[in-house]
This record gives sequence, structure tokens and C-alpha cells, in this order.
Amino acid sequence: MSGFFSERLNGLCPYVPGEQPKRGEYIKLNTNENPYYPSRYAADGIDGVFLRGLRLYSDPDCEELRGAIAEYYGVPSRCVMPTNGSDEALAFCFAAFGDRGAVFPDVTYGFYKVFAELFGVPYTELPLRADFTVDMDGYLNVGRAVVLANPNAQTGIYLSLDDIERIVASNADNVVIIDEAYIDFGGQSAVGLTRKYNNLVVVQTFSKSRSLAGARVGFAIADEELIADLQRIRFSFNPYNVNRVSAAVAVGAIRDRRYFAECIDKIKSTRARLVGELGRLGYAVLPSLANFVLAKSPKINGKKLYETLKASGILVRHFSDARINGFVRITVGTDEQTDALIKALEIAENTL
Amino acid sequence: MSGFFSERLNGLCPYVPGEQPKRGEYIKLNTNENPYYPSRYAADGIDGVFLRGLRLYSDPDCEELRGAIAEYYGVPSRCVMPTNGSDEALAFCFAAFGDRGAVFPDVTYGFYKVFAELFGVPYTELPLRADFTVDMDGYLNVGRAVVLANPNAQTGIYLSLDDIERIVASNADNVVIIDEAYIDFGGQSAVGLTRKYNNLVVVQTFSKSRSLAGARVGFAIADEELIADLQRIRFSFNPYNVNRVSAAVAVGAIRDRRYFAECIDKIKSTRARLVGELGRLGYAVLPSLANFVLAKSPKINGKKLYETLKASGILVRHFSDARINGFVRITVGTDEQTDALIKALEIAENTL
Repeated sequence: MSGFFSERLNGLCPYVPGEQPKRGEYIKLNTNENPYYPSRYAADGIDGVFLRGLRLYSDPDCEELRGAIAEYYGVPSRCVMPTNGSDEALAFCFAAFGDRGAVFPDVTYGFYKVFAELFGVPYTELPLRADFTVDMDGYLNVGRAVVLANPNAQTGIYLSLDDIERIVASNADNVVIIDEAYIDFGGQSAVGLTRKYNNLVVVQTFSKSRSLAGARVGFAIADEELIADLQRIRFSFNPYNVNRVSAAVAVGAIRDRRYFAECIDKIKSTRARLVGELGRLGYAVLPSLANFVLAKSPKINGKKLYETLKASGILVRHFSDARINGFVRITVGTDEQTDALIKALEIAENTL
Repeated sequence: MSGFFSERLNGLCPYVPGEQPKRGEYIKLNTNENPYYPSRYAADGIDGVFLRGLRLYSDPDCEELRGAIAEYYGVPSRCVMPTNGSDEALAFCFAAFGDRGAVFPDVTYGFYKVFAELFGVPYTELPLRADFTVDMDGYLNVGRAVVLANPNAQTGIYLSLDDIERIVASNADNVVIIDEAYIDFGGQSAVGLTRKYNNLVVVQTFSKSRSLAGARVGFAIADEELIADLQRIRFSFNPYNVNRVSAAVAVGAIRDRRYFAECIDKIKSTRARLVGELGRLGYAVLPSLANFVLAKSPKINGKKLYETLKASGILVRHFSDARINGFVRITVGTDEQTDALIKALEIAENTL
């Protein structure tokens, strides 16, 4: 740290992204990317003419992209705000709605804590139950912003739409932010509830189910007044936050419903197979509706397992947090990648 | 504003970007875009294979892009931080170095004020002199962060590298941020001074001189400790802030020195012609080293002139700030666009 750095942010402890190896050939199951290519329609916007268009600013209103997302979800365009990945949407939520503090689970997306610190939002981490499910009591009538990933990050465990609605309804005086990065892999989105409740923000991303992690497109959907608040932050931070190419590929991707459904089906089917195989090897596996599973070896500790797999060319993720450091988080890849993973696990279990 | 919005940010007044018309054919001279296409090498990264790569996250370390920028400027990679447009770099500077407040000119890039409000940075706007030059006395031994656009936004007036160095040298206890969005059109960059002073951040963009406004790529160059501070903010806000396509096109663009020099030469030559023609029509024109000029009609007020030009299909920018509301800001376009502009001005001067 230089001598010039903000005293207020003295203790700021940045988010640590998963490994993104620049070299080496790995079966990459560590950052929940989609193993399938983006929709071929995503490419439509990218050709010579388009590249020449790059000399002009992107549309700060993101009209076309907002329209495409709004159409997909059957909400008005003015209730949608696109962002540079969903992290940016979440950051804007903390800035806009965090004054009185925030609550979120102790085991969840590690970035919530960092956003809270960056924007000076006091926060409480509510412990998940022993089985890693959300303890509903902690989220009713909170009086502070509620932030929940659904399905939850790291665990993959899904909270029913009824439970989400109970939380939203009981928190009429504060905002509830539901981070649905993984919702398309089996859960039911709370987007519909934004038509009924004025205190709900749903955040989603094109990074997982739509195979566009490298394009950096996320969005928030909420009541129009909440979106106006978030737009106020966006226009005070980076009005041209979504570039021309990413906006175009995202429009192509969200309009291609058939390919989307095909990819989701394949990932669900591979997930079922992966869970079955892990069970056969004696692993404890949390029930996941995401494109990853959190799994614990019957005898190898999480860190060791991560290292062993890496040495055999397979990247998974290991977290040092005490409650889950016995586990590894495995992204659901292709069937072939899953076969390779299971084979590597069998070898590890038999030799370690 | 909803009832949920942050009280601290109650007074936040977002930046208003220039018009980005979605429909209609305009000669667009209002947001200082480059009239020439990006380097053809910018396209190299974009093909089918690349699009498929979009399923994977971008490199949070931006290794290739940092390397290309570092090579261009002859600085170490660790002294470079790429961002999602230079607005994001500037925002991070306010967050990281704004604790004790900031000073900047009263006439300059309107976003500085907004960043200050967003991050709770107390600020002072120092009046430019009557001729719109920077009053050096206000920027020596300031004791707070100094923010200067060079050439200055809106005026195009350039401060010599010697003056910049005097400011940097006299402010050893606080950070000096030089926003060089327009430096390539005739000024001398202060990047070299970052090797000598540990309190200087130079911010640049690919939006103007490199024809990539729609790709959203900017960067900061500074002493490695300052860059580490800024990276700490970046990793606490959006570690994947630069997407794969934009990083690739930016690398292609910065490596193409020949095309860059050609475009700059053409813009300088058109600027000289534009200034000459405006003088012939009796306009007051501030001496600009940017790709725009701030010009004042001998008889038509700024707002009226903006409206008249818009009606004849030419977009320029008008600002309501009292000190410059008599002027319009005209981007330097192609020679053909300049001919059309001058013709429209002649008609306006003769009929209004």
C-alpha cells in the first residue's frame, strides 16, 4: 500500500478470483464457466462493419440489450439495467441501498463482503444451518438490505420461490437483492416477483448459462423506481459500462432460446451423472441446482484433493473458509470432462 | 428516487453523456469520437475461434493488454492498470486517493465532480483564468488530490509538461491525477514522469486517438505502489472489468503505430483547417491541442447554434455551464464533415 491510499479503505481485502491459467492445458472446472460455446447468433454482431462501428461510443441507454432482456422476461425495458458483468450490478446495489447495513449468509459469494467494505456498508454474516441450508428466520423482518444468492454460491443449494417471496414480503422497508447467477440450471427465477414488490432486485449474468463469461454482461431487474436509483449510480460511475461488442453478443445469445435450452439440458444431465458417480465414490455432495457441486472426499482433505487434481491437469476450486475447506467445488463440464474427473478421483482415492 | 436510496447519496447528480442518437443521420461532431476506423489489426482477435473463447472468463490480470501498453510507453507492466474505459480508472482514483479532498478546474470534464460526490470526496473547483488557461498558483502545494485534464476537457487548452512537472513536484504529499484522454492530438504525455515521481497517476483512453470508443478501454499508468492501490480497488469492485474482445482489439490497436500516426496527422491537419475557417467566419476559438475546438459565434448564442446545426443534421455539443454556454464544442471530423459544418455555419450566420 502506498502512503496515499484511503484511510477509510485501509482494511479493504479484495476479492480473489478463481485461477485463470494463461498457459497449460487444464480441464477447467474451477470457475463455473459453461463448457459449451455461446449461441452462434452471438456472432452476428461481429463482422468488419461492426468493428468499424467501434469508433463510436456504445449506447449509454443500452436500448437494444435492455429490450432483448425485457422481452425474454416479459417486463418493461425501464425495469432492466445492463452492467459490465453482474459484479457491477451487485456493487451498484451495495452503493445505492446499503446505508443501513446488509445481511447475507456466512457461506456464499465471497464478493458481498468486499462490496460492503468498499462502500462502507456495515454487514452481518448469518450462519447457514449445519446442512448448509439457509435459516429462514434470520432473513425475515431484517430492517437492513438482504443479499442472497439463489441457488447459493459455493453450496448450489436452492431456496424455493415461496421462501424468496416470504423474505421479500417481510422486508417491505428494505431492499432484498437476489443474485441469480445460477438460476437457469434448475431453479425458478424471482424476476416475476419484481412486478409485485417494489423492494426486490434480481441480478443475473450472461456468464454461466449463456456461455459469455468473457463478454462481461450482467443485469438487474426490479421495480422501475429501484432501477432508476441504480441507473443514478451507473450514470455517476460509468454510463458507457457495456461495450458495443458485448451488448451485441448478449442480444444474440438471449434471443436463441433453443440453443439455450439444449445447453441447460446437457448440463443438468451431466450434473446428475456427476453426482451419481461422486456418490458411488463415497463423496458427500450438497444438493445443487447450479452448474457446480460442492463435494467432500471420504478421506482426502479439500486442499490436498485440489492439488492432486491440478497435478493431473484438472482445475477445481478450493476455499479456505473454515466451514467448507473440507470440500472442493467442481464445475459441471461436458460428459467427457466428467469422465476424466471421475477417473482422476478414483486414482486419488486409491493411492492417497 | 425510491424510498430505499442511500441518504448519503441523496444529492448525487449523475453525469450527462453527450447525445448518442439511435436513429437519424447526423454528422456526429458532439462526443469527440475519431472519424477514422480502428486499426485493421484490431480485428485480428475477433473470429469464430475467439467468439467460442467467450465462454471463458477474461484474464483478471489483463496480462497481454498490460504488456502491450507497457511496451508502447516503455514502462514495466506492473505500472499499468487497464479499465473499462478511462472513466472507471478515474473513479478508482477518487475512491483510492480522495480522502483529504480534491481540486480541479471549474471548467473541465464534468465527471470529476460526480465521482467526488459518489465517493464522498470533498472538492474545490478552481476557476480557470479569464482566457480559460489554468491558473498555476492554485495547483502548487495543494495538500489534496489534484485532478487535471491535459489538454483540458471542453477548452482543449494544453498545459506544458514543465508545468505538469512543477505541479507534481510541489505536491509530494498528495496524488496528482492527469487525465490525458486527448494527449495524442498534439501534447506531450506525462507518462515518463511516473518513473520519477511516486505521486503521479496518468489516465488515458483508447476512445479518442485509437478509434475505440465503443470498445471501452482505458488505463492508468503510475508508480507501482499507486497501481497496487488502484488494483486493490479494482479487485474489490470488478476484477474482470475488461472483457476478452475489448482487450484483444485494444492490443491490436496499440501495436499499429503507423496507422495511429496517420490518423493523428489527418486530425491535426483538419483541426488547423477548421480553426482557420472558424476564424474567417469571425468565431472566437480557444487554442486546442485536442480533437475538438471550443468556438463562439460572433452573434449566435451557443444553445441556438447547437439547435440550428442539429436541425441541419450536424451534432455538436453545447454546455449549460455559465462560463462556456456561449460556445459550442465541435469534434474534429473528416475534411468532408468539416466542409459540411462550415457551410452550415455560413448559412446560420447569414440567416439568423
